[in-house]
Parts: sequence; C-alpha cells; structure tokens
Amino acid sequence: MAKNGTISASVIKRLPRYYRFLGELMKQEVERISSRELSEMMNLTASQIRQDLNCFGGFGMQGYGYHVRSLHEEIGKILGVDREFGTIIIGAGNLGKAIAMHINFETRGCRLTGIFDVNPRLTGETVGPIAIRHTDEIEQFCKENKPVVAVLCIPKANTQEIADRLVKLGIRAFWNFSHYDLTIEHENIVVENVHLGDSLLTLTYRANNNIAPENSGNGQEDSN
Amino acid sequence: MAKNGTISASVIKRLPRYYRFLGELMKQEVERISSRELSEMMNLTASQIRQDLNCFGGFGMQGYGYHVRSLHEEIGKILGVDREFGTIIIGAGNLGKAIAMHINFETRGCRLTGIFDVNPRLTGETVGPIAIRHTDEIEQFCKENKPVVAVLCIPKANTQEIADRLVKLGIRAFWNFSHYDLTIEHENIVVENVHLGDSLLTLTYRANNNIAPENSGNGQEDSN
Repeated sequence: MAKNGTISASVIKRLPRYYRFLGELMKQEVERISSRELSEMMNLTASQIRQDLNCFGGFGMQGYGYHVRSLHEEIGKILGVDREFGTIIIGAGNLGKAIAMHINFETRGCRLTGIFDVNPRLTGETVGPIAIRHTDEIEQFCKENKPVVAVLCIPKANTQEIADRLVKLGIRAFWNFSHYDLTIEHENIVVENVHLGDSLLTLTYRANNNIAPENSGNGQEDSN
Repeated sequence: MAKNGTISASVIKRLPRYYRFLGELMKQEVERISSRELSEMMNLTASQIRQDLNCFGGFGMQGYGYHVRSLHEEIGKILGVDREFGTIIIGAGNLGKAIAMHINFETRGCRLTGIFDVNPRLTGETVGPIAIRHTDEIEQFCKENKPVVAVLCIPKANTQEIADRLVKLGIRAFWNFSHYDLTIEHENIVVENVHLGDSLLTLTYRANNNIAPENSGNGQEDSN
C-alpha cells in the first residue's frame, strides 16, 4: 500500500467514487475490469484512471486489467472504511433524521451512536435503533462513549458555538450541513462543509444555459 | 455581462460559493471588499479571486475593491437565480421532506410546486405549504404545471425508470439524491448527482489521516 502522504488531494477526492463503482462491480460479480471499461462507466479518461490508480500500487496488468476485489479493498483501506469512528448527529429535525436513516455509516468507517436535539419533545423518540437524547446530555455522553465524528444538522446561528463545545469534548471531525462555513481554529480538526444549496445553484446554472427561454427556440450558448 | 459560454467549468463551480459569501456580506451591510479580504474569508488566494471575477467583467477597481451588491447581482444573473423553474420532489420520506423544508428554492431560481410519493398513506400530508400527491398524479400535474426540475429522493432501484418517465413529461433538470449515478440518454437534460456517502468517506479519509490510532501517539502522515 502506498504511503497516504504521497497521494495528491485531487486523487483523494476521486477515491470515494472509485470505491463506490468498484463496490457496484463486486455486487455484479465482475472479477476484473480494464481501465477502458472503467473509464466508460465513470466518465473519466482511461489514462486518468491509470494515472490515479498507479498512485497506490500496481494493480493493473497489461491485458488483464484491474482485479476488482483487490482494488476495492485497497482503496477502502486508504479511505479508512475499516475504522469505527464513533459518530453523533446534532439536530434531529427532518435533515438529521434523513441522514441517520439514509446514510450507511458502517460502510464508511463510522458508527452512529447518538442523536441529540435541543427540543425536549423529541427526547426519547427513536430514529432507527437510536433514541434521541437532549443536547444537555452531550457532555456526559461524550465522556462515556468518546465519539470523534459529529454531523451538524442545526441552524446556522448555533453552529460555531456547538462546534467549539464539541471540540472540547473530543470531537475531531465535523460533517457540517448547516449553512455556516465552519472553520475550526484548532489543530487536527477536519471539516467537510456540505452546501446543498450550492449544488442546486449549479444545477440551476446548467439548466439556465441548456433550457431555452420560452418562445426563443433552442439556446446556442450551450456551455456543457 | 460576460457571455456565459466564455466562463470555464472550474470558475462556474466556484460561482455558487462566491454568491453565498457575497450574500452574507450584504446582510452585514458591507458595501465593498478587496480581493485580499474576500480571499481570507473564502480560503482562496487573492489572485485566484481576481482571475475568477475578471471572467465576467471589471467590477474590481484598484484601491477600491469589489462593489458587493453589484457583484452579487451579476453572479446571480449568470447563475440564473432570477429564473422560476417549476420544481417537483419525487419521494416524500425523511430526505424528501428535509430537502423541501431545508432548501430555499426561491433564492436559487427554482419554485417548489409539487411533492410526490408512491405511498398512499402520505397522500394529503403537508410539507410546509405543499400537500403530498400520489405518484400516479405526476402525468396530470406535469401537463398542467409544466415543471422543469425534479429532485429525486427515491430508492436507487427506481431512479432510472422514473427519470425516463419524467423526461417524457418535460423535466429537463435532475437533482439526484438517490444512490444511483443517473445518466440520461437524452439531449439537453442536465443532472446533478449528490452523493452524500462520498462526502462522508472524504471526511473519514481525512479523519483517518489526522487522528492517530489509539495508543500510537500522533500520526506523522498528516496529508492535509
């Protein structure tokens, strides 16, 4: 396995996608795949794929292609899917509940252990196998269970404050869905800000440039 | 205003983020901002910002900086926030409801007009001001209301099938939250696949490389 430190940030960004496609191929019981076939599936060039996958070892063999299971396993190791980072969700509104139900934490190196909400009426309600706890219990919970990942599904106004509080309790990674660009001023804290609104705006832009205004015929400035 | 066709894909990707930060500055009643100040806020280099914003006109002036409101407005026009694309959500589980409540469609060029679910027990239940309709009503609804954007919050297995059906009904843009990499084989259809799982995996990777395994001291392979 390659030393992680030698893999560039742009390759890292593509790893989860490789991992997902390889997982699909395994489900379909595909044993091996050429860079050309993989490139067609993933809408990348074959040379891009060879270059990316070269970064972490020689799994591709001329005339044979990649061994799907080995490559999947190797990328999984690099990503850390074999970890079991204790994970808590802060905010049990529709979004928090959707994340809890919709995301398979276990296959991504995380284990969901707690869900918290400031609304006392939600306390005790269950989301899947987990009972919602009141936010007041976070300190005690973190002391006992030592989670390291927090998913923030709370209003923007409270984000920085609760993040600072969680850092003091040992949280080292934030998956942030609030509309606040979280920047933690501590060492060794990692943050992924998810801005769903930005994703919708990108779609709007592309639709706006693809879809002709009414009565104007087809647009000519197709920039995709 | 610059012809959209001349703006590169990588600049386009950053536009929603510029738009969001400029909107924040307007709320704080900031009138103008230098590329240096903006670069610190956004964690980009000042020269990157100047280069990006140069693409669509000369709003920056030496010693003055950018006029926040004009720049916000201009980027908004390019993105198409003044459009009112009729938008429907397919799937009214936790995720569909969360998207309906959590996302401000109006400020992003879209207008949410319908929510559909295959489960008859949800029919008539309201999400904000909108009553959930049964999926059987989609044909009639599209004929009458002509939506062009569809948000897919449905299981993977049904995604391609329902997308094909929606294309026939006039849908031209898909915001796809299912775990299926949607590729529409039609002209002038745009798709944004949102893979929340990939985002979590990126966080896991970064945490894995930042957080030392227990009892091993601090990791040395910090790749961030």
